[in-house]
Amino acid sequence: MPNAPFNPLVHTLSAPPIPLVQQWVNNYDGAYGPALDLSQAVPGYPPHANMLMWLGETASDKNFAGYGDIAGEPELRTAYASHVADLYKSSLSPENVHITSGCNQAFISSIMAIAGVGDTVLMSDPFYFNHESTLSMLGIKTGTFFTNADDGFLPDLKSIEKSLNETVKAIVLVTPNNPTGAIYPANWLEAIFDICRAKGIWLILDETYRDFLPEENQSPHPLFCKKNWEGNLIQLYSFSKSFCIPGHRLGAVLGSENLILEISKVMDNLQICAPRPPQAAVAKALPLLKAWREENRIEIATRASILQDVFTQLPEWNISAIGAYFAYIKHPFYEVSSLQVAQQLAQERGVTCIPGGFFGKNQENYLRFAFANVDQETLKNLPARLKDFRIK
Amino acid sequence: MPNAPFNPLVHTLSAPPIPLVQQWVNNYDGAYGPALDLSQAVPGYPPHANMLMWLGETASDKNFAGYGDIAGEPELRTAYASHVADLYKSSLSPENVHITSGCNQAFISSIMAIAGVGDTVLMSDPFYFNHESTLSMLGIKTGTFFTNADDGFLPDLKSIEKSLNETVKAIVLVTPNNPTGAIYPANWLEAIFDICRAKGIWLILDETYRDFLPEENQSPHPLFCKKNWEGNLIQLYSFSKSFCIPGHRLGAVLGSENLILEISKVMDNLQICAPRPPQAAVAKALPLLKAWREENRIEIATRASILQDVFTQLPEWNISAIGAYFAYIKHPFYEVSSLQVAQQLAQERGVTCIPGGFFGKNQENYLRFAFANVDQETLKNLPARLKDFRIK
Repeated sequence: MPNAPFNPLVHTLSAPPIPLVQQWVNNYDGAYGPALDLSQAVPGYPPHANMLMWLGETASDKNFAGYGDIAGEPELRTAYASHVADLYKSSLSPENVHITSGCNQAFISSIMAIAGVGDTVLMSDPFYFNHESTLSMLGIKTGTFFTNADDGFLPDLKSIEKSLNETVKAIVLVTPNNPTGAIYPANWLEAIFDICRAKGIWLILDETYRDFLPEENQSPHPLFCKKNWEGNLIQLYSFSKSFCIPGHRLGAVLGSENLILEISKVMDNLQICAPRPPQAAVAKALPLLKAWREENRIEIATRASILQDVFTQLPEWNISAIGAYFAYIKHPFYEVSSLQVAQQLAQERGVTCIPGGFFGKNQENYLRFAFANVDQETLKNLPARLKDFRIK
Repeated sequence: MPNAPFNPLVHTLSAPPIPLVQQWVNNYDGAYGPALDLSQAVPGYPPHANMLMWLGETASDKNFAGYGDIAGEPELRTAYASHVADLYKSSLSPENVHITSGCNQAFISSIMAIAGVGDTVLMSDPFYFNHESTLSMLGIKTGTFFTNADDGFLPDLKSIEKSLNETVKAIVLVTPNNPTGAIYPANWLEAIFDICRAKGIWLILDETYRDFLPEENQSPHPLFCKKNWEGNLIQLYSFSKSFCIPGHRLGAVLGSENLILEISKVMDNLQICAPRPPQAAVAKALPLLKAWREENRIEIATRASILQDVFTQLPEWNISAIGAYFAYIKHPFYEVSSLQVAQQLAQERGVTCIPGGFFGKNQENYLRFAFANVDQETLKNLPARLKDFRIK
């Protein structure tokens, strides 16, 4: 009587990286102060008091206890379409929006709508690890293209062209980037969009961190103003970072009405609909908490510049790229794996970050620091934790 | 510049059935009283006032705004393991539990953990339509086995044996059944479990409706007391029905610790974790609202017996099976499709139900009535809506 087997595509996946990394600090003795979690991207300040109040009101409202529309609450689809249309100076309708339970779900539901076993999806090197594991678990092949470290980790257009073949169904870009923080310029995105159009494939733009661009109300790109953008463009977003509510699980896909209908079929099987009460609360918060989000954008930009300052005290360490939520740090220990460096940093200095190796096999010289997680004073104390650090 | 294509496995899926069916009633003129929605299984009474209060408290608590454990909130995993252990007179630990966003997600995450393209999963005929569409969209082949209408729609064991082949990775059973309402006896489940063990495949038991069995604290089966049950058994559950909170999206998988680790890898890609605040609220409600759930179980059993009574006034119609939430009704219009009958019933009489054809191609003579949705008085008025009904 043998035990029934598991799906090899899932069984061979590594355990989820964040919980793995977060347990390393359990051995830290506190010698350098309280443990600092720079691993998972989580806002280092609480949600706005009104946000919490609205979440409480909608969650205790029996009108949101029943099933809702698969594609999302009408008021949130409307509010989000209007918000994005304003930001991108474009015209969008609620029918272009599908609400999901977070941005990982926005990604997997989009991928399932456009690709299957035998297809290929291209990602940057380094990539966001959940994109890679999602594709692997679905039996979709992954291809990677280079990004140039000397050029702020922008995608290499020639490398993209070279990676294309008949099986490629989509190119995935994350901007501002996870893990590097790189903000892709509009002309770069337009060039890659043109490649996708010419080939008749999808451009999937994960813009989870777009609310933390350097300028106020900065329109990230003009792609939604292009004629027939709907035929090739899918945009992903998360409400977790801007509203500090990852525990409520809310994200969104923006695309053609036809794409949204396909995603509804996927979502019906994935979980019927995203949880309703937070949707109603965020629909209210989207216009009303604009000024508060702007304050946070400025705060996090200040943290970025403090981080850049403090790293001048650490000549052996180097900020290779920085933007929005993340800094991509070149560590000085080339002879060992990034995992060993990160593990020892957590255990000895109480600093938890993500090893570069989790973002691709060419990334062993790097560590990802989610600097937005911690306040300015804490960032200023980072040099005391990193200097004299040596690999054993 | 061609538009990028969709995934044919999703593109060829029908639109989700529930929204399709629910729009038919838009043409109803109200002549027979208010519209009755007997389509989607939704409790016809609100959540308990304390449930709403706890949901409000946890949703407005900043401690639940951040990311949580992938497998679920520790207090809910503990409370649920203990609840199931009591009910099934077995021994279970929190590590046997994975919390999901509803039972459709419990199903797809389990399926992804155990099967992929080229594998086969067996379902009953009739089947629950989301099981079928989930498998199709993943490129997993579906096989069906007969259930005997004369025998209360119990699975035919010989038909199961005949459907087995080397590609079969799992048998899925829903008990109490969706759509028929059939409650599978313990010895039936044991026999099918033994088949799965002998073949080294999984038995997936969807027990979404188990809180509405005919007896108080009725243990549905003894499978969790069998030695090494973990090697072949996966149990799915939904908190939506018992607590009347489908809008909050909460379900659970119960299985071996190894299975739960596999499901965590899948869930990390699907949505990281289920929404946290409702988990904390349900952890509190699980022991405290036991008496309230028992009242509801009795109420719904009463509705079932009222439905049986009133159908004696409709000699052309026949309740083929009934249990928990659903009645499976044989309609008298064999010459037309079940879709035509259901559509006309909604449009002319304001009664929305699900056509049997949605549960399998041999089910055209049936309609599924989710009788638990409406109160006793409303059920008593059903004959006035159905008698004289003729297909045009």
